[in-house]
Amino acid sequence: MTDFAKTKSMFSIPAGMIYLNGNSLGPLPKSAQARVAAMMTSEWGEMLITGWNKAGWMGQATRVGDRIAKLIGAQEGHVVVGDTLSIKVYQAVASALELNPDRKVILSDNGNFPTDLYMTDGLIRLLNNGHELRTVNPEDVEAAIDETVAVLLLTEVDYRTGRKHDMKRLTQKAHAAGVITIWDLAHSAGALPIDLSGCNVDFAVGCTYKYLNGGPGAPAFIYVAPRHVDKVRPALSGWLGHKSPFAFDLEYKAGNGIERMRVGTPPVIALAVLEAALDIWDMADIHDVRAKSIALCDLFIKEVEARCPQLILDTPRDGAARGSQVSFRFTDSYAAIQALIAHGVVGDFRAPDTMRFAFTPLYIDEADVLAAVDVMKNVLTNNLWDTAAFKTKSAVT
Amino acid sequence: MTDFAKTKSMFSIPAGMIYLNGNSLGPLPKSAQARVAAMMTSEWGEMLITGWNKAGWMGQATRVGDRIAKLIGAQEGHVVVGDTLSIKVYQAVASALELNPDRKVILSDNGNFPTDLYMTDGLIRLLNNGHELRTVNPEDVEAAIDETVAVLLLTEVDYRTGRKHDMKRLTQKAHAAGVITIWDLAHSAGALPIDLSGCNVDFAVGCTYKYLNGGPGAPAFIYVAPRHVDKVRPALSGWLGHKSPFAFDLEYKAGNGIERMRVGTPPVIALAVLEAALDIWDMADIHDVRAKSIALCDLFIKEVEARCPQLILDTPRDGAARGSQVSFRFTDSYAAIQALIAHGVVGDFRAPDTMRFAFTPLYIDEADVLAAVDVMKNVLTNNLWDTAAFKTKSAVT
Repeated sequence: MTDFAKTKSMFSIPAGMIYLNGNSLGPLPKSAQARVAAMMTSEWGEMLITGWNKAGWMGQATRVGDRIAKLIGAQEGHVVVGDTLSIKVYQAVASALELNPDRKVILSDNGNFPTDLYMTDGLIRLLNNGHELRTVNPEDVEAAIDETVAVLLLTEVDYRTGRKHDMKRLTQKAHAAGVITIWDLAHSAGALPIDLSGCNVDFAVGCTYKYLNGGPGAPAFIYVAPRHVDKVRPALSGWLGHKSPFAFDLEYKAGNGIERMRVGTPPVIALAVLEAALDIWDMADIHDVRAKSIALCDLFIKEVEARCPQLILDTPRDGAARGSQVSFRFTDSYAAIQALIAHGVVGDFRAPDTMRFAFTPLYIDEADVLAAVDVMKNVLTNNLWDTAAFKTKSAVT
Repeated sequence: MTDFAKTKSMFSIPAGMIYLNGNSLGPLPKSAQARVAAMMTSEWGEMLITGWNKAGWMGQATRVGDRIAKLIGAQEGHVVVGDTLSIKVYQAVASALELNPDRKVILSDNGNFPTDLYMTDGLIRLLNNGHELRTVNPEDVEAAIDETVAVLLLTEVDYRTGRKHDMKRLTQKAHAAGVITIWDLAHSAGALPIDLSGCNVDFAVGCTYKYLNGGPGAPAFIYVAPRHVDKVRPALSGWLGHKSPFAFDLEYKAGNGIERMRVGTPPVIALAVLEAALDIWDMADIHDVRAKSIALCDLFIKEVEARCPQLILDTPRDGAARGSQVSFRFTDSYAAIQALIAHGVVGDFRAPDTMRFAFTPLYIDEADVLAAVDVMKNVLTNNLWDTAAFKTKSAVT
């Protein structure tokens, strides 16, 4: 059984803050500064260029990938870390389209995170070959899977509502129709158990700065199923994905397996931070995390509905049908979130009127949930949000 | 006049090491660990998600871009930092081709760094529209510029030989033939004065872990000329390049100016390291750096040729015709470099037989050059490289 008091003690969270925004940016692992300082001093500082060999920087992207593989039900050697999630989406869609060259439709839903749609749109424009990005409502995805579809591109957990797709069923249906699947795990990795192998998923991508706590702008990851990985020729064919990067051939030759999904020089310092964050995951069982996350979300929903009737639940009530966040709608969500933050409860706002709260058992417990609802009741009952200061929008919301 | 004793004191270089590999990875600025630890504690740790606004993380990519702009002769507001150099090359080539839609040839040379060619090759394959990557010998580039060429893609300073292209002349010739230019500044930024505006360059890209000392895997940068930037529609159309990322529109709308060349969530921690490294550049005049670099290279060539006649110079003798490195060829360069490193002189090897040494006045002085040649003479005269230990190749060479 995961010792959540212990995992909680390993994060640095400001006194008086209840941090319900781990679905956007996970908090600082206490070990991270020391880890980075040590890496910078003893590796960069002492080894300099020889760190690529001596400190193993060159293999870090797949070593860290293997640690993430365990959390997402992927086979060892089939996940690599690097770049941003946007870039990894582009790689996955380009490779998936190549595996299904006679079809032109990329099917997604309008609850997908916009960058997945934007990157696909940019790719389609470049291909200039009749491809179409077809976005339907999330509940209509299953019916829209047919033999015209080349690629199904879905984010498992909706960033706004927390609604969770059924990865296994949709992947099965897609495969039955000859469709290649790409799952974006941005709101899944570290939030709930994922079984990429068991679901027979083709490609998956995700980020590490949300539930994995890798820090602002931490690198992304990509998974390619073993049956495909040696067939794909990367669209983003960078030197680190070359079979022999240090041969400096003029011709690109794709590297072995997942190595080919690497692009440029890896972000060594950011990877050191991520490694410190993943150490905490070594102490946790993702099934325990999921069970507690569902219980915390259930408690939050019950308490908010009882005490803050102004808020309208916008997340599935059934724990199995959602990720690890709860969203409510409110007429002045933006101002209300600012007021909550000022009173120590950190959630976030998503246009047009969603307030999001994530429940992350590694560092959030039942007492936090109850304390957060106390603050919410105070802020809402007394209209503490209703001031110009909280209504003025920042550049980043 | 730049105080090079002072700049040298700001780097952490191991005692007994003469570091002549700043063209591959710059050394650790002493202020970097404290800067990163402070950023992690007071920004990530204390502000968490609100750091995007409060700590200005969202504007960091262009703020740092402006600092780099000063070093490369670019206009303020036209450089943005992020991703890797491979990704930035891809963006530049895709955009440049769009500006010249009726031509199909991308002209480069076989001294270009391979990833530039690989990324272009991947893009061409995706476009599947008759494009051709034509690579000629570096000395034949000028003659190969003609009205069939869409894009000229060159690295200013050759990573193997240090040979420097004439940016102004080649750009003029390219423009006269209706060719769009892309200059890769990997071995130029921080090595020598660059005048992107004065040369009327169309696109430039570069990395920050070499002469700018931003650390292993530090992010890259891209410049787009003001006359083009509002015309290009990015191929890698990520959410951070969207006009209003936090509107979460389903449709991509390119951001204002250089903002559109951003892709995914920026690498905040890596950018903090880079900011510390750029502080040292605030104390240096790039013209002083260039003058001293030429003098150090001249001294090195003279001393090596006098004392190590086994080595064959493979870099232009004329300081104006090279970058900030000197290369020699030797039958057993790989083993010789390993032996030199073991004796405290860090250069590097590039296949098939090149030994590279960079001269970086921010932290290398005349005494270092003379001491390095003493070691080289000892290693070569006494065949200290001729052992199995030094001949065994590592994964990364």
